[in-house]
Amino acid sequence: MSTDVISELKEKLRGVALLEHSIALLEWDQETYMPSGGSESRAAALGEIVGIKHKRAQDPALGECLSKAEEFAAGSGDRDLQALVREVRYDYEQAIRIPAPLASKIAESCSQSMAAWKSAKDNDDFPQFAPLLEQQVQLQKEFADCLQDEELNSYDILLNQYERGMTSARFGEICKQVVPELQSMIERAASQPTTSPDFMKGPWDRDKQLAFSREVATELGYDFNRGSLDLTSHPFCTSPSAPHDVRITTRISEADFTSNLYGVIHESGHAMYEQGLDPEWEHTPLCDSISLGIHESQSLFWENEIGRSEAFWSHFLPKMRHFFPGRLDGVSAREMATAVNPVRPSLIRVEADEVTYGLHIALRFELEQGLFDGSIQTSELPALWREKMQEYLGIQPDTDRDGVLQDIHWSFGLFGYFPTYLLGSLYSAQIYQAIGKEIDIETEVSAGRFEGILQWLRTRIHASGRKRLPLELLEDATGHTLDPSVLISSLDRKVDLVYGN
Amino acid sequence: MSTDVISELKEKLRGVALLEHSIALLEWDQETYMPSGGSESRAAALGEIVGIKHKRAQDPALGECLSKAEEFAAGSGDRDLQALVREVRYDYEQAIRIPAPLASKIAESCSQSMAAWKSAKDNDDFPQFAPLLEQQVQLQKEFADCLQDEELNSYDILLNQYERGMTSARFGEICKQVVPELQSMIERAASQPTTSPDFMKGPWDRDKQLAFSREVATELGYDFNRGSLDLTSHPFCTSPSAPHDVRITTRISEADFTSNLYGVIHESGHAMYEQGLDPEWEHTPLCDSISLGIHESQSLFWENEIGRSEAFWSHFLPKMRHFFPGRLDGVSAREMATAVNPVRPSLIRVEADEVTYGLHIALRFELEQGLFDGSIQTSELPALWREKMQEYLGIQPDTDRDGVLQDIHWSFGLFGYFPTYLLGSLYSAQIYQAIGKEIDIETEVSAGRFEGILQWLRTRIHASGRKRLPLELLEDATGHTLDPSVLISSLDRKVDLVYGN
Repeated sequence: MSTDVISELKEKLRGVALLEHSIALLEWDQETYMPSGGSESRAAALGEIVGIKHKRAQDPALGECLSKAEEFAAGSGDRDLQALVREVRYDYEQAIRIPAPLASKIAESCSQSMAAWKSAKDNDDFPQFAPLLEQQVQLQKEFADCLQDEELNSYDILLNQYERGMTSARFGEICKQVVPELQSMIERAASQPTTSPDFMKGPWDRDKQLAFSREVATELGYDFNRGSLDLTSHPFCTSPSAPHDVRITTRISEADFTSNLYGVIHESGHAMYEQGLDPEWEHTPLCDSISLGIHESQSLFWENEIGRSEAFWSHFLPKMRHFFPGRLDGVSAREMATAVNPVRPSLIRVEADEVTYGLHIALRFELEQGLFDGSIQTSELPALWREKMQEYLGIQPDTDRDGVLQDIHWSFGLFGYFPTYLLGSLYSAQIYQAIGKEIDIETEVSAGRFEGILQWLRTRIHASGRKRLPLELLEDATGHTLDPSVLISSLDRKVDLVYGN
Repeated sequence: MSTDVISELKEKLRGVALLEHSIALLEWDQETYMPSGGSESRAAALGEIVGIKHKRAQDPALGECLSKAEEFAAGSGDRDLQALVREVRYDYEQAIRIPAPLASKIAESCSQSMAAWKSAKDNDDFPQFAPLLEQQVQLQKEFADCLQDEELNSYDILLNQYERGMTSARFGEICKQVVPELQSMIERAASQPTTSPDFMKGPWDRDKQLAFSREVATELGYDFNRGSLDLTSHPFCTSPSAPHDVRITTRISEADFTSNLYGVIHESGHAMYEQGLDPEWEHTPLCDSISLGIHESQSLFWENEIGRSEAFWSHFLPKMRHFFPGRLDGVSAREMATAVNPVRPSLIRVEADEVTYGLHIALRFELEQGLFDGSIQTSELPALWREKMQEYLGIQPDTDRDGVLQDIHWSFGLFGYFPTYLLGSLYSAQIYQAIGKEIDIETEVSAGRFEGILQWLRTRIHASGRKRLPLELLEDATGHTLDPSVLISSLDRKVDLVYGN
């Protein structure tokens, strides 16, 4: 027994990771530059590589090599190696427990279901989508059954696909604590209605928006030598090969510059996480992000904690004026920070502000739980959606398009995914607080110095990869266990800023 | 025995073609949008897929299936099936005859050699490149030995990699016929020196150039729903999946609009060929181009026969004026056609005009033959280059950078590739002549009607894929065997146009 077995394991992992590189690029291209006529061929080409990858990921030879590597790691006293084999074991068990026919059925059903969802949304016709949604729920239950675990129910198993170590019981507690606080903030904000100031009005030149956003992303620390910024209808971040090739995309609204600017900052936050993964562990799970919640904490940190602060605008307002001469001359950093932090109940999750956002998540979490414990039928969703919107946000959609049909997630079978958005906010607030104890964030940001902050994140969060699970990572990095009150206090201060005391 | 064996064969071919899709995309991205930091990882990801593809292409199971398919096709009386198995056999024999160690050695040597060539070119230091060039020659000899054929010598075997059915004896005859004619045209042109007219002078706005070129490509018939146009340092055409996804790239010079315009038309010609392949045979050799010469005939047809004609400018001058108001008001189509058809000996092949171009090819062909029959040593190349340039074009480079080091091809082991450029011109001239017997090309082009011409090419050339070999395809399409005098007459007329009688 020697380190040979570790080399062999790494070689096998590399064989999987190199295929994931191609998969990521094929998918990125599909959203950016692929001509529309290429979509069918692309689906086939992707399916081929995905198939080869699956085979490698569940290869019995990998399992044998892994067993030997586990034995070696156990006796080595090397914690990194132990984390490595733990994570490889996790992936391998997931891979071998899902039978190929179920995986194909899910893949096939997703593509049908997504098409049905698109059409149902266009036509505001929920019943058209309902049977496929029902099928997605059933398939995800089957999927969860394959990963059966004594401690976790089906929904928890799905939740753990995205956020290891989280349970619906715990997330339910979080919602119970957070929801009423957010509601009271909304009430405070509603008592002093604001309108968007004139200086926010468009049109804003598209090319200049993009040039400004690119400059911001560069200054914050997104490395364009290992990244790119392209246009898509839905912004995303993807890594053909982290940390060496980590790309983001964005969209532009001429009417509202915040869509592009905060979109770019958000995706840059995701990308800086992946660019900060440890290249020493390239092609292994230790050079991969640990969870969606941690990922979202990085995007939200830069978008909300940094990007929507007065300090941010102290530094960037003069630069923005350079791109838009004469447009923002009389505007102060304080006014801009106020303008980009509205609190207003709205129907669409992706357009929601920082305060109301959590309520959109709580609503979805509640409905998902009901779908999986059998207390809610898919047919009841549109009515329940309206009811819950009224309860949480005090408004109701006129159409299902602006209601239960708004998100693509369920059509892909992504149940248990939404909670990670709120978890990302919680982590982000705690990370901000922890950094604040070591670095004078406002002074640094006002002066346009972001290296210290990024370095903190690099060392404490990014470089960890999958060595520690999310809650352990949070605690090691911040010195505190998960505590929703930190986000609540942070949002409280923001509401004070915008809506006075 | 039934058509099941054909389905099985197609399924196996599809497994190779779908990997080629990913390879093409990874390579395309490498030249277009990949951040520089991603290059090492990309090489690894590419190598992985190429390896899997090679394995599939020489899989003994494919060989067995092919043998059965050949038996079936022979008895079927179906000529398409017979062409299919003939071409699959050709590819399969090529694949199994090259031992894996040699393939790896060539791949490795190419990447070293390309780096050495780049550096040698930058430093004008041929001796630095010489040993690697020597190695490339040796490796390509070994490669040719693996494909040994009684009728063909080593160089012929390489030539056949790019142009099936061509021999150095025949290409030598072509050069013998063409070279003195081109030389006499150059003399005629030189007797009446011209300078580029003032209206050609830059700067030309980059975005407008691109918009105009895109409009031209669209009108000629390049289908952007199945294509795209992106920027790279060297223009190329690639098909992740012909005929559904066929992409081109271009570059822009502010000083000279012809670089972009004719580059785009040229690549569109390549792309229209691939877009015209028969989707019924997708993922098989019958939905693939037959040779580089035929490919080049399509790009040169649109670039030179159509794009540099007076009729072309009759239609497109008003459109170009729309993009560049006031710039070309007094210019006639005749003047423009004259301006874009200069005849001037120059040092660099890729900048050469239509007449002098063939001499650059003849020179390279002669040197390549010498390298492969042993009559020329690599160390003699710089001096021989100067000598031949003097002989063919009457000029000599001051540096090897502008001489023997100018092209990348040899550093990749591409010997026998250059002749296809001249063959493309010959084919193109014959195709133009043949179309002219059925369609009044000048009238159609002047009126901006390109569908009839494209349809002719689609039916007679594109849709054939690899069903017929190059010379057979040319003869079937044009009714004539290969005849260099057609190009000679065509160029003669152009020289008359530009330099008077």
